[in-house]
Amino acid sequence: MGFGTIGSGVFEVLDKNRKLIEKRAGEPIEVTQILDLREFPGSPIEKLVVHDVKKIVNDPKIGIVVETMGGTRPAYEFVKSCLLAGKHVVTSNKALVAAHGTELIRIAAEKRVSFLFEASVGGGIPIIRPLVECLGGEEIEEISGILNGTTNYILTKMDEEGWSFEEALKSAQELGYAERDPEADIAGYDTCRKIAILTAVATGKEVNYEEIPTEGIKRITSLDSSYAARMGAAIKLFGTSILQNGRSYLEVAPVLVDAKDPLCSVTDVFNGIKVVGNMLGTSMFYGSGAGKLPTASAVVGDMISAVRHGKEPETIGWSSEKLEIHSVSELPRKYFARFEGSRTDRKAIVEESFGKVKWMKLDGKDEFAILTGEMTGDAFDAAAEKVGGLRQKIAARV
Amino acid sequence: MGFGTIGSGVFEVLDKNRKLIEKRAGEPIEVTQILDLREFPGSPIEKLVVHDVKKIVNDPKIGIVVETMGGTRPAYEFVKSCLLAGKHVVTSNKALVAAHGTELIRIAAEKRVSFLFEASVGGGIPIIRPLVECLGGEEIEEISGILNGTTNYILTKMDEEGWSFEEALKSAQELGYAERDPEADIAGYDTCRKIAILTAVATGKEVNYEEIPTEGIKRITSLDSSYAARMGAAIKLFGTSILQNGRSYLEVAPVLVDAKDPLCSVTDVFNGIKVVGNMLGTSMFYGSGAGKLPTASAVVGDMISAVRHGKEPETIGWSSEKLEIHSVSELPRKYFARFEGSRTDRKAIVEESFGKVKWMKLDGKDEFAILTGEMTGDAFDAAAEKVGGLRQKIAARV
Repeated sequence: MGFGTIGSGVFEVLDKNRKLIEKRAGEPIEVTQILDLREFPGSPIEKLVVHDVKKIVNDPKIGIVVETMGGTRPAYEFVKSCLLAGKHVVTSNKALVAAHGTELIRIAAEKRVSFLFEASVGGGIPIIRPLVECLGGEEIEEISGILNGTTNYILTKMDEEGWSFEEALKSAQELGYAERDPEADIAGYDTCRKIAILTAVATGKEVNYEEIPTEGIKRITSLDSSYAARMGAAIKLFGTSILQNGRSYLEVAPVLVDAKDPLCSVTDVFNGIKVVGNMLGTSMFYGSGAGKLPTASAVVGDMISAVRHGKEPETIGWSSEKLEIHSVSELPRKYFARFEGSRTDRKAIVEESFGKVKWMKLDGKDEFAILTGEMTGDAFDAAAEKVGGLRQKIAARV
Repeated sequence: MGFGTIGSGVFEVLDKNRKLIEKRAGEPIEVTQILDLREFPGSPIEKLVVHDVKKIVNDPKIGIVVETMGGTRPAYEFVKSCLLAGKHVVTSNKALVAAHGTELIRIAAEKRVSFLFEASVGGGIPIIRPLVECLGGEEIEEISGILNGTTNYILTKMDEEGWSFEEALKSAQELGYAERDPEADIAGYDTCRKIAILTAVATGKEVNYEEIPTEGIKRITSLDSSYAARMGAAIKLFGTSILQNGRSYLEVAPVLVDAKDPLCSVTDVFNGIKVVGNMLGTSMFYGSGAGKLPTASAVVGDMISAVRHGKEPETIGWSSEKLEIHSVSELPRKYFARFEGSRTDRKAIVEESFGKVKWMKLDGKDEFAILTGEMTGDAFDAAAEKVGGLRQKIAARV
């Protein structure tokens, strides 16, 4: 359902790797119908195209339905009908999974079919299944991820080339990484849905993504990148989920990352997801977080699993119990901040308000920057208010 | 079976994360017998200890056996007996899996029980299950891994601190990273078994690890590290498996890795495994490749899977069809090489033998180094013979 970028990629992967997929699934996987609004005259798939979802729902020969339409309407109704008809569903649609996952997971379990969504987070990077199966013995303490390739490309160019945000965004659009309307990426909405899905999988509880404090990268300037570079650090858009003392702290926001953090070297359109477990310590998963074929490959991996497990489906998902969400800013952490004025004039008030800080200055700028000690977001805001003239504030993991 | 480092770690993970493990497995997992040669008087496990494997094999209440003894004798006979008795077996023992995996996988399939070995490669890093399940739609083109924490620690210290091999090895032993007899690690034997297992899982064919050209890190000097640092690169011990045009090329050897390669930033005792698929492109898995609790966590993850799948076990493994193994040195690649003498004297013969090369020199050394163009190992050897005075040769991915 949906023969756009990902959908056509799935068709391509199934075709190119046909023999090995048949071997691994134990039987051939053949595409018999393609739902799309468009016709594809003259194309090899022309005769497979249908426009009515009922043709798929009512076809007893169809065992697996792949949904790559994106968005929640009509994807939600279509997927639900397919599950209720006893068909496995594999989707790459993070909006659908974040908004309706709980219900779809429940229906799939009742119908004893698979509802799999590895491709909805991290594109081709295996993350959902490893979290559920390989790290089954772990109490997950943290998931922090660079989950959006577009914003990571923009921030990388600002860091490495000194480009402005606008220049980097324009380049991303020219290369096809960013949509003409890039809001979902740069405002952090895409990352928000993905960290919600990962947190739900890790905790087994429903996460309402609308409750996650979310900001994007629009307020990051090349000046911030220059300070970061001077510190040997980089600015990344993080989806963060911290589980501490039974409470969950979530956030989507830019973070200043130390060069020694394995996520710091995740550049360009790549994604990286750090998982910290109470026994395992830190692990990281890295790869192509988006793009036609990597995402399609994750869909096909799920299709093979669905075939292999048949009527004994894997239980990957969460319950309808709701996770209480706290803001990461409740936890003490360091902040990078820029203030107007001169360091000499304002040293006293800064140290009175923030205590001991690390000072930074770039030549020729009528401002100064500090790296604070560990403090909560509220404490930072109170101190910054006292100092006055705050120009920038970014959480820092350095 | 085996209450050493990993075995006691499994006990600890099962204890510490008891509640969540019960929830994820769907039933409690309780340790009822521990096979070890030793007694543990006064310890909480004292009453669980047995010395005869038959007590475990013949106990109908035991559903899962964990093997963490290491080595192939008597682990092989013990594991085989347990599988034949219809018990799931989970092991962290790479020597066992590399030497007897084919037979044990077959017996487990016949008996409809799980034989799982995620912990045998990469410690706590999920790699075997992601390879089989998430990357099921991929033709795997390359697996390159830093698979041994001890050697990676040694090479990191030589790179970053300028220590000699002997100093770094001594430090690794003092920190408990290296065994008193470190041969299995530093000669590459450990990495060899691990890349054999990964290749078997990726190709579905049996890999005879004894056929893999294997060398360790003993011939690496701090001088090599200095050259590497000057190139912005690092020397790592790689297990390499390249699948090209239907042929498999394997090797265990030190490799000069470019700073931009995601494996270059894998330092200290960490492991990193790069997987390249024909659809996915490059992905990487990073984490604690050894150590008590990370490895134990991988064992417990497999135990949960075994319980969940019950009598419909996952098929993770390979057939008895043998993989034909070629040496990576048959493929053209760059080499870093050091020669005695002065560059000025020997420029003509070097360029006549190697063609265009990149020249390097460190002050005060009566030698010079080159980075060749892409050439096979045989072509390199012939050219080096012609030049004479070869002191070092390391494959280079720069």
